[in-house]
Amino acid sequence: MAVALNRDRLVDAMETQAAIGGTEDDGLHRLALSDADKAARDWFVEQLRALDLPVRIDEFGNIFARRPGTDPDADPVLIGSHLDSQPNGGIYDGQLGVVAALELLRTLDDEGIETSHPIEIVNWTNEEGSRFQPGLQGSGVWCGEFDLQTEYDRTDRDGVRLGDELERIGYRGDAPAEPTEAYEAYFELHIEQGPYLDESGNDVGVVTGVVGLSWGEVTFTGEANHAGSTPMSMRYDASVPAAELLSYVRRLPGQVGDRTVGTVGSIDVEPDSINIIPESATVTWDIRDPADDVVDHAIDRLSAEAEAAARREGVDCEVEETARTESAKFADRCVETVQRVADEFGYESMRLLSGGNHDASHVNEVCDAAMVFAVSEDGKSHTSEEYTSWEDCYRAANTVANAALATASPTTD
Amino acid sequence: MAVALNRDRLVDAMETQAAIGGTEDDGLHRLALSDADKAARDWFVEQLRALDLPVRIDEFGNIFARRPGTDPDADPVLIGSHLDSQPNGGIYDGQLGVVAALELLRTLDDEGIETSHPIEIVNWTNEEGSRFQPGLQGSGVWCGEFDLQTEYDRTDRDGVRLGDELERIGYRGDAPAEPTEAYEAYFELHIEQGPYLDESGNDVGVVTGVVGLSWGEVTFTGEANHAGSTPMSMRYDASVPAAELLSYVRRLPGQVGDRTVGTVGSIDVEPDSINIIPESATVTWDIRDPADDVVDHAIDRLSAEAEAAARREGVDCEVEETARTESAKFADRCVETVQRVADEFGYESMRLLSGGNHDASHVNEVCDAAMVFAVSEDGKSHTSEEYTSWEDCYRAANTVANAALATASPTTD
Repeated sequence: MAVALNRDRLVDAMETQAAIGGTEDDGLHRLALSDADKAARDWFVEQLRALDLPVRIDEFGNIFARRPGTDPDADPVLIGSHLDSQPNGGIYDGQLGVVAALELLRTLDDEGIETSHPIEIVNWTNEEGSRFQPGLQGSGVWCGEFDLQTEYDRTDRDGVRLGDELERIGYRGDAPAEPTEAYEAYFELHIEQGPYLDESGNDVGVVTGVVGLSWGEVTFTGEANHAGSTPMSMRYDASVPAAELLSYVRRLPGQVGDRTVGTVGSIDVEPDSINIIPESATVTWDIRDPADDVVDHAIDRLSAEAEAAARREGVDCEVEETARTESAKFADRCVETVQRVADEFGYESMRLLSGGNHDASHVNEVCDAAMVFAVSEDGKSHTSEEYTSWEDCYRAANTVANAALATASPTTD
Repeated sequence: MAVALNRDRLVDAMETQAAIGGTEDDGLHRLALSDADKAARDWFVEQLRALDLPVRIDEFGNIFARRPGTDPDADPVLIGSHLDSQPNGGIYDGQLGVVAALELLRTLDDEGIETSHPIEIVNWTNEEGSRFQPGLQGSGVWCGEFDLQTEYDRTDRDGVRLGDELERIGYRGDAPAEPTEAYEAYFELHIEQGPYLDESGNDVGVVTGVVGLSWGEVTFTGEANHAGSTPMSMRYDASVPAAELLSYVRRLPGQVGDRTVGTVGSIDVEPDSINIIPESATVTWDIRDPADDVVDHAIDRLSAEAEAAARREGVDCEVEETARTESAKFADRCVETVQRVADEFGYESMRLLSGGNHDASHVNEVCDAAMVFAVSEDGKSHTSEEYTSWEDCYRAANTVANAALATASPTTD
């Protein structure tokens, strides 16, 4: 028994949330726990209260609301995503996932549909990780991957403490930041942030898992010296092996796996002056692959290259992995439910792995989970150029909503 | 007729100036037109007034004082350097050149020596170019290479205008910032800022010229995208050609000339985030060679490599030369005078080209010029680790002072 969401109301809710922290170029600047994030949370809570749902805010600011089911023994089905954004990001990202979940609850009320399992909506705190690191923070705390106190103590660039900001915006709640009972399943809608759906002409993506990820940095240390009067043979230029490592990361994926990606997003040299030979240089890495052993292998090769490049220039080198996420495989039954719903709606779909990390990776450790991806034009994301047509938003919202509904009412299926 | 400077007084003056803007690690932080620069200028002017010399401050803050000669038709001999420093630089750099010139004037007074030509001492404004670009500014304006009004309008990182700072510290003088008469010669003492003297065990350097210099930057522009979900084959990563160009600049000198040096001192990527493929990347270059056509050839090859690297990655590239200084060859008669003085003192010397640029490059366009280099331990400079022993300071000071004296009193020579 599938329900069709109200397309106009979905678009209207998307536009309303997009205006909270909206930018002049139609993007969204709604950093976690900022005033704009507070305003978006206030709006979200207001919508939930309008549905007569009790709102539960946990110690880490995650916002939940549960629509009761008819079976007192049935575990709740969780559905949601996040309302925060990157600096000058787009308006779809995870916001669409929260709005789709809200629209599901509204539609069930409209049509007087009861489910055997409760359906619980969630907005996770700080998915983006741009103001406070790490990202996926609310789901990480809730799933027990992160320590509550440690995450409270994170500070932003201005030294502002996360716990204090939660308090300031009024979203440090009383509910425990953990699952206090079993959950039946978790469904999350997010835009793809990659080009595969758009390129292949599909309507929605059935996400089967999330690739493994390694983040790290390599720091080379040589000797600063005058660029004019130091002979080439007497230099220990830290920027040289850094550049060679950066070039290597461009080639590395093609040496280790078909689905591997590798990126150096940041390179910094010191003292950073046109006529001084750099004393130190730091490059970051971001390596991902569906297979964790391929990620391991890539990091081994990257480390070997860093050391070889450092030796060639006669400088020191330190290699440090700063974050590691194992790949996640979503539960077959949840993936199959998403697939079936997409087929029933007649949506062209493809199965794919997520290259980006999502709250579902954490929740997948607590209960069965799956994700739906919406088409992301040209794969652009984290920029105001991010774009998903309203039709694609609607298709993806119908898919995730009905996957949750089908799981919450298995007997009516 | 050589005079021996007063070693103790020279060391004392060096220590006194080093305390003005001195840092905890015995370095010097005396940025051009800062309060510390004002204090050093005030001290310098006080020393000149103590010698009963009229002080002349020009419109660009260059400070002159002339000790009269006996021949009313003889052109003045100019001697000096600069008192400003790099951020957290060393205490010797050009400061030694100003103190040596001051010590010459004091010694001539002590010994009642008259010269046929006047001897004029100078402290040039903003040699370093670290707070306000470009460097060698005071000599550049005075020699007509730079436009006075343009240089007044330069701003520092805080947007403070140079002309306003000159006014604020009371060093925007009335004298025209140009040579209003012919000069006989210019002598300048500076530390080597390179390793050749130290390595070869020489006492002083006889500088025969300054290498040609090109500064520039290359900006690559690609497309920002998500590091996780963008396939390697769909990337236009601006950092990749930037890194390849950086590696190339390390090899380039060995391909074009025996004395060529090439440096990338700065590389910046945007948006500079660990999980975003860089949209833009900028690298600077600093290329030097004694022969201007070798510099030209190096820039041609660098530009070709930048364009090839950009093409390989499918990104755009803009190459811009931001500064160019032709190589300078000092006048044989001045170089020979320096050499003869060094020989007479029994100092071990070697002839060398300056890899760094100096005020003498500009003044060389106005009158005959030459430079003396002091030994710079391990070639370190622009750092608090910069070190020249007092004995080496004294030898170099004696050399430059007596070269000026010999030029100012040719008949007594």
